[in-house]
Amino acid sequence: MTNTLINNVPKNPVNCNDHLSGNPFLLNCWYVGAWPHEVQGDAILARQLLSKRVIFFRDTAGKVNALEDRCSHRFAPLSIGRHTGDGVRCMYHGLVFNGKGTCVEEPGVKGVSRGTDIKSYPTAEKDGFIWIWPGDPELADEALIPDCKFQNQPGKWDWEPRYRYFNADYRLILDNLLDFSHLTFVHENTLGGSSKIANIKPKTESYDKGVRITRWYLDEEKIAPYLRGFETFEGRIDRWNIYDMETKGNVFNMDSGTAPAGTGAPEGKFVPEAMLFHATQIVTPETETTSHFFWSYAHNFNLGNPEFTTMLTDRIAEGFEEDKEMIEAQQVIINENPDTPFAYIHFDRGLSAGRKALAKALEEEAEYFKTKANQ
Amino acid sequence: MTNTLINNVPKNPVNCNDHLSGNPFLLNCWYVGAWPHEVQGDAILARQLLSKRVIFFRDTAGKVNALEDRCSHRFAPLSIGRHTGDGVRCMYHGLVFNGKGTCVEEPGVKGVSRGTDIKSYPTAEKDGFIWIWPGDPELADEALIPDCKFQNQPGKWDWEPRYRYFNADYRLILDNLLDFSHLTFVHENTLGGSSKIANIKPKTESYDKGVRITRWYLDEEKIAPYLRGFETFEGRIDRWNIYDMETKGNVFNMDSGTAPAGTGAPEGKFVPEAMLFHATQIVTPETETTSHFFWSYAHNFNLGNPEFTTMLTDRIAEGFEEDKEMIEAQQVIINENPDTPFAYIHFDRGLSAGRKALAKALEEEAEYFKTKANQ
Amino acid sequence: MTNTLINNVPKNPVNCNDHLSGNPFLLNCWYVGAWPHEVQGDAILARQLLSKRVIFFRDTAGKVNALEDRCSHRFAPLSIGRHTGDGVRCMYHGLVFNGKGTCVEEPGVKGVSRGTDIKSYPTAEKDGFIWIWPGDPELADEALIPDCKFQNQPGKWDWEPRYRYFNADYRLILDNLLDFSHLTFVHENTLGGSSKIANIKPKTESYDKGVRITRWYLDEEKIAPYLRGFETFEGRIDRWNIYDMETKGNVFNMDSGTAPAGTGAPEGKFVPEAMLFHATQIVTPETETTSHFFWSYAHNFNLGNPEFTTMLTDRIAEGFEEDKEMIEAQQVIINENPDTPFAYIHFDRGLSAGRKALAKALEEEAEYFKTKANQ
Repeated sequence: MTNTLINNVPKNPVNCNDHLSGNPFLLNCWYVGAWPHEVQGDAILARQLLSKRVIFFRDTAGKVNALEDRCSHRFAPLSIGRHTGDGVRCMYHGLVFNGKGTCVEEPGVKGVSRGTDIKSYPTAEKDGFIWIWPGDPELADEALIPDCKFQNQPGKWDWEPRYRYFNADYRLILDNLLDFSHLTFVHENTLGGSSKIANIKPKTESYDKGVRITRWYLDEEKIAPYLRGFETFEGRIDRWNIYDMETKGNVFNMDSGTAPAGTGAPEGKFVPEAMLFHATQIVTPETETTSHFFWSYAHNFNLGNPEFTTMLTDRIAEGFEEDKEMIEAQQVIINENPDTPFAYIHFDRGLSAGRKALAKALEEEAEYFKTKANQ
Repeated sequence: MTNTLINNVPKNPVNCNDHLSGNPFLLNCWYVGAWPHEVQGDAILARQLLSKRVIFFRDTAGKVNALEDRCSHRFAPLSIGRHTGDGVRCMYHGLVFNGKGTCVEEPGVKGVSRGTDIKSYPTAEKDGFIWIWPGDPELADEALIPDCKFQNQPGKWDWEPRYRYFNADYRLILDNLLDFSHLTFVHENTLGGSSKIANIKPKTESYDKGVRITRWYLDEEKIAPYLRGFETFEGRIDRWNIYDMETKGNVFNMDSGTAPAGTGAPEGKFVPEAMLFHATQIVTPETETTSHFFWSYAHNFNLGNPEFTTMLTDRIAEGFEEDKEMIEAQQVIINENPDTPFAYIHFDRGLSAGRKALAKALEEEAEYFKTKANQ
Repeated sequence: MTNTLINNVPKNPVNCNDHLSGNPFLLNCWYVGAWPHEVQGDAILARQLLSKRVIFFRDTAGKVNALEDRCSHRFAPLSIGRHTGDGVRCMYHGLVFNGKGTCVEEPGVKGVSRGTDIKSYPTAEKDGFIWIWPGDPELADEALIPDCKFQNQPGKWDWEPRYRYFNADYRLILDNLLDFSHLTFVHENTLGGSSKIANIKPKTESYDKGVRITRWYLDEEKIAPYLRGFETFEGRIDRWNIYDMETKGNVFNMDSGTAPAGTGAPEGKFVPEAMLFHATQIVTPETETTSHFFWSYAHNFNLGNPEFTTMLTDRIAEGFEEDKEMIEAQQVIINENPDTPFAYIHFDRGLSAGRKALAKALEEEAEYFKTKANQ
């Protein structure tokens, strides 16, 4: 067998390891910072996001605040401090900061010393997530929060919140989510199950907020391994994954499902026994080479049965463990080869479109900060 | 509440994270290198001090020697060597070094090869410590060894030796020892116990060798938590901490006590039931970001009762664990923010005086080495 | 005792820590990459060699191949891939590579995309080893594979394969193997056993491929500790170690033995009860500061007794553990003192000759690559 030139390679493929130079992530956008259940009552949650150490806590009215996790005085972390009223007390020398980062108490004196305020970040709570805006606070418009509506339709969709940590650049996780060809190889016994998947060409489209990838596997013989035992029908299947990836915030909304073959799913007609899923998958960079992964996998059948929701979600989680192993192994090799470009193959069209959208947004943001600095 | 300017901030506060640049520690002074019981018989003790790897061992007359922990030949550590007579044999190729670092034996030949001697350090044993002089040996005058007399009055004061390792810059430990305001917050249930402590203004004085901090807490309702169960009297108390910090060697001698309120302690009159303490606390840098802490906590009551001494010392140690947790957390954040200055608050007067004395001594030493290099 | 100048120090001793600068290892030579039993059936063996991550696997005809352990596409390691036919499939997106590194399959398309081939390395299997050529493949002549004939004489010599990992620069291991004076100190209770060893001067000779070190210990009272219980005779002994070190590939062939004293061993006459050994010891750099050590210890007596071979080899291995501890300790100190030269002593003649031969070969190779780059 000889190497054959494939004609559908784009003329100017984006260099897919562009993550090795320049500004690593967007700042002017809303990112998921936490699940609401992680910040309950008097809890102070510490998390690193976009290379910034942050704490989340609620004021007495329940509103979530985010501050830098560093007392201005001697740099003790506030995450080992104590929740007090609407603020947080540093437990080294007792300074208290409110939700805006203003130092409101210094023991032993009236008022407080100069220069003791700390940085706060805009936050919001919407669609089952706590969001944070790490960039220019002037731009932090809540109308810009990505739509995660699948998590906000109780009674129609059941789901549970999940979290996983990755020792990998967030862009490698985006690549993975935008690519379906790996299902055959990485997820042979979990999410994949059919060698045909690797041969089906997805449709890649751009839209205002990012990229849409559509993949239909029609008239497959068997249901995917992760659904075995959960079947609502017997026989051949039609299966699909339709991914909307929003570049700002790395938000993936996936419309996915398995229906009896030939019952009209591709035309939007769903018979009652069709198993429909709405996955919400969000990647928030921790640092340039580590990432947070927040996700849920909503289903429209077997509702009101939390044990089933947990079982189904566990099956998906098993697949994500396979991704994690592969992506983290990939990251190790990338770190050792910082100057070597990736080869571009036929199936990279989807992830390449995602990378291009990201590169464009990063460029625009760099321009914004440059202009602002010159004002 | 608004930020109010505090007028007692010094006009030119020393930059309290000056540890981030310049020569990190004094070399021309005596530092505690070990407790005598760590270097008994044929023991070879390995320890890193002031970024130098050193071994301590005794000669046949019992005198302690300190050598660099590196054979001149192929850099095998002498700490995995063997004590032999008055010296140490490298157990790789058999070279023997005496207490001056002179190579006195090379197997298979008469005499020894050129260039095989290694560095030795002046040492001394005084007041219950083994001291080492890491700087210019010409200046190593034993008269300069700091006074740790509280450890040298058997029958009047009982104590036991303790050691703790810190993953932190020694200056953060000095800051902590010179500051009492943190007792309320860090040591709420151990050394502190009163929220009033955070509001009492200490007296800060300079003297020829360093800084003295004096703090009196008069007519307190309760004894500190660490003394509960050990009381020699009942009722309200006067309590004090008077710290002498010697800049050279980072030596803290603390005169401390708890007496029945109003019985004259502030005037130097101590009723028999007054509980007096003499703490000796010494910080020897290991590297720029790690430290050794040697300490004891002598008491004048319940003498001749080693179990009591251990119990009391354990209570203090519990408090130091709280400091260690805080200081090491602080160090992590400092490492991540090398260029951000600390904010200065009202209670920093004491530690700021300590930092100033240290900065001055470092400057003088730099001048000394510069002059010497030019001779 | 005073420091005496030793006259037999060479006028220009090679700087024995020259490993601290320049090209760290030879590339244009055959190195041992693996034992054949490590690459059986469908196994894919991952190993880092000469700072390159490599996989070894066999094709259907049993021939060993070596490829870089990195898929060209997205840098997934092929070592977590799957053996398929004569090649290896990357288990991320399914690309298949043959033993030459040619990409022969890309899922979902006919042919393969451009630029997907990866690097392969010349390999060979000879004298009980799998060899790899990390340098210019044009020079990879199998006639250059070092002779390890002692492993290739079944019925005359019994041995078993061993492997040990060192956290140390390979040159420190070569130094150790070329030096016998350390037997007295490091191996007092294992390979050494006599303090006389440290005093016997070895003969050092150069030959075309490297260095030969010869050391005879005549009329010793006792057999070495590692042979106790295995004696074939009683009484005083003659003992010898004759090392041939080939610079290219770091190959040591040692002719060693213990014979009844005065029975003619130094003249090449071996009585039947003489215990003869042929050690094969090969150091392959993993990185600049870590190494692979492949070795065997063949014996001519008690043949056909695998339990005995294991027992004897275990005894030797015990000695190598002592070396490993010392060499790794040495490496730590060297890392902390990159600019300090070693002192040269009387017994360094052997290892110094080895270092000189290596330095010369490194220089010649640098010249080769320079000339080639300019063509």
